[in-house]
Amino acid sequence: MWADLSPIGRDKDTRGYRRHAWTPADADCRTWFKEQAESRGLTYELDRNGNQWAWLGDPAQGDAVVTGSHLDSVPDGGAFDGPLGVVSSFAALDELRRRGAEFTRPLAITNFGDEEGARFGLACVGSRLTAGQLTVPAARRLRDADGITLPEAMENAGYDATAIGPDPERLARIGAFVELHVEQGRALDLSGDPVGIASAIWPHGRWRFDFAGEANHAGTTRLVDRRDPMLPYAETVLAARREAELARAVATFGKIAVEPNGVNAIPSLVRGWLDSRAADQESLDQVVAGVEKAAREHAERHGVDLTVVRESFTPVVEFGHALRDELAALLGAGAERPVPVLGTGAGHDAGILSGSIPTAMLFVRNPTGVSHSPAEFAAEDDCVAGVLALADVLEGLACR
Amino acid sequence: MWADLSPIGRDKDTRGYRRHAWTPADADCRTWFKEQAESRGLTYELDRNGNQWAWLGDPAQGDAVVTGSHLDSVPDGGAFDGPLGVVSSFAALDELRRRGAEFTRPLAITNFGDEEGARFGLACVGSRLTAGQLTVPAARRLRDADGITLPEAMENAGYDATAIGPDPERLARIGAFVELHVEQGRALDLSGDPVGIASAIWPHGRWRFDFAGEANHAGTTRLVDRRDPMLPYAETVLAARREAELARAVATFGKIAVEPNGVNAIPSLVRGWLDSRAADQESLDQVVAGVEKAAREHAERHGVDLTVVRESFTPVVEFGHALRDELAALLGAGAERPVPVLGTGAGHDAGILSGSIPTAMLFVRNPTGVSHSPAEFAAEDDCVAGVLALADVLEGLACR
Repeated sequence: MWADLSPIGRDKDTRGYRRHAWTPADADCRTWFKEQAESRGLTYELDRNGNQWAWLGDPAQGDAVVTGSHLDSVPDGGAFDGPLGVVSSFAALDELRRRGAEFTRPLAITNFGDEEGARFGLACVGSRLTAGQLTVPAARRLRDADGITLPEAMENAGYDATAIGPDPERLARIGAFVELHVEQGRALDLSGDPVGIASAIWPHGRWRFDFAGEANHAGTTRLVDRRDPMLPYAETVLAARREAELARAVATFGKIAVEPNGVNAIPSLVRGWLDSRAADQESLDQVVAGVEKAAREHAERHGVDLTVVRESFTPVVEFGHALRDELAALLGAGAERPVPVLGTGAGHDAGILSGSIPTAMLFVRNPTGVSHSPAEFAAEDDCVAGVLALADVLEGLACR
Repeated sequence: MWADLSPIGRDKDTRGYRRHAWTPADADCRTWFKEQAESRGLTYELDRNGNQWAWLGDPAQGDAVVTGSHLDSVPDGGAFDGPLGVVSSFAALDELRRRGAEFTRPLAITNFGDEEGARFGLACVGSRLTAGQLTVPAARRLRDADGITLPEAMENAGYDATAIGPDPERLARIGAFVELHVEQGRALDLSGDPVGIASAIWPHGRWRFDFAGEANHAGTTRLVDRRDPMLPYAETVLAARREAELARAVATFGKIAVEPNGVNAIPSLVRGWLDSRAADQESLDQVVAGVEKAAREHAERHGVDLTVVRESFTPVVEFGHALRDELAALLGAGAERPVPVLGTGAGHDAGILSGSIPTAMLFVRNPTGVSHSPAEFAAEDDCVAGVLALADVLEGLACR
């Protein structure tokens, strides 16, 4: 399976993946998914929000067990974030068929669309729409860097964008969703376990800081006459690091847009995006308030106007304890020691869906701890362990 | 004249100009120049490096007096930087004809190509090539943000790029070059003079700082595991301001490129460009050394690799005292007080050519002091004063 999927959307120079929603690379991934489904005799289905489904059994029976992840990537992303969950789902089904498992509940494998939000700036668009956590008017307003709206991008890719919207009937037929994902940190590497179970997703959000100064000539404008927005931006980057250290949280300025962005021009506008996450809401509030306070002080000192916009926010997601404990019991049976349960700072479709249906996540060890980069990694043995763990879970849930 | 020129290359939203070299907007400016030349019965000529010339009299006579400037712009530039010098040159010729002046030396008006360097990152390409200060192989390697080389851009615009190179015969026929330019600071505004004469162009250069860290997930990577290049970049921006204050110089980070530039990705690379200028070489060296020292210390602290590349450098340009004093005498005759003589931090074609031929510059008051922005301004009375001053200078030089 990996052999067909690996070359799609891979940049020759960086070796990173650029599988952004509704691009040709995304379309190739979707074709791969459809072929995997059909080659296994599964019933292929595309839902109103562009998520792909591969059904074993009749969905109308209800109480379905669903597993899967996403195939899209961040810019120059790694090979595992997303695809490992989809590939492992198909491989786990193959394993269960090899075991001769008899399914008592319908099973589906999914590929959720636009999980990373790399193109339109909002993550988990496919699952958010389905769960009603993103309204249709808001989705229609999403634009990529070239000004193309989400509906235009969907239509350009040959999809019907008029149908997008909440899908409660679909969710009502699902009894459990389990997403397998490569770990995006080093907790499993440090504990020495190939596979773990998710406890919670940290609350997290994105804030846009617009520092508006005055464009001017970099060679002739006296320092005292300047209103240079790059200076308060730089102070704010450093403040974010300090506040995150204080709150034992994370805070990152990873994206910036500068106007006019000329070597000899003092910028008129520096726009920086803050991504911050913490173990609890109070810590996150403390970080963001501290960063914004520093930004306002330094902007004022430099005669720069500041606007702060919260572009997205996801409260803490505690995965349902019943399903989580069921997974722990299924995986712990016969094992030498219990499977570790760990939190994560990353958002996932499973986090979105946990508001509507019972969801759980499995993590596979990533020895580099690196994520959203070609250096992201999972050893073959650990991938196999992930597939077997997922097979055990699906067997326990769907073949009782 | 302004009525035809003003709409060309103007952005509807910013009201700024985007007349970058060898673009359709640049072509429209060039057509305007040719029409101005021909409507006055001047002999139009395009030189091997894409600079435009409008001749009155026979260039072969030698010892020509040349005036002019450039018509290209920075991104979202103002209306006056460049065009004021070209428009004033034609207007000064009209004024001299009105006065019935008889020319004893050939006169030419010029539009130098790609002065701002907005597209290929190197300023004064047209005059540098002509003066032999930019080699042909180096010019052929210049690329814009889309990877288009300078020769490709010239060919795409319908010009013969195989001919570019030094043009000493042309320079040998020129006895004096005078460039009129809107002031890019507030010295004339503070002294209360409509027109001034340039003394020197500060030494200046551009340095590229490449901070190479490690791309990673912004939500899941512990702060201690990060190699985030945005942090030493921010420290370096602040160091540049401190060093410039200490040396009474200017230093600016106005351009940045981030990879992968995703909201939830710690950058793998932050590339920042430093523009710095000072009244003398020693001060400039002090600024750049101080900034680089700070950059190295902070990069090392964050496990980030730093590469610093000097992309361009222009030593101090002292305009020839003989021509400068001649201008002061011509403009001072009959005036209430002497015309002020001032330095500037901005580079100009006149600075490039001063290495080959006697050159001088006139500045017209800019009450906002703003430059490289739509807020750049010159009052109509001051523009007229500039035209009359240029006419006086040309009459004194070419009609003796």
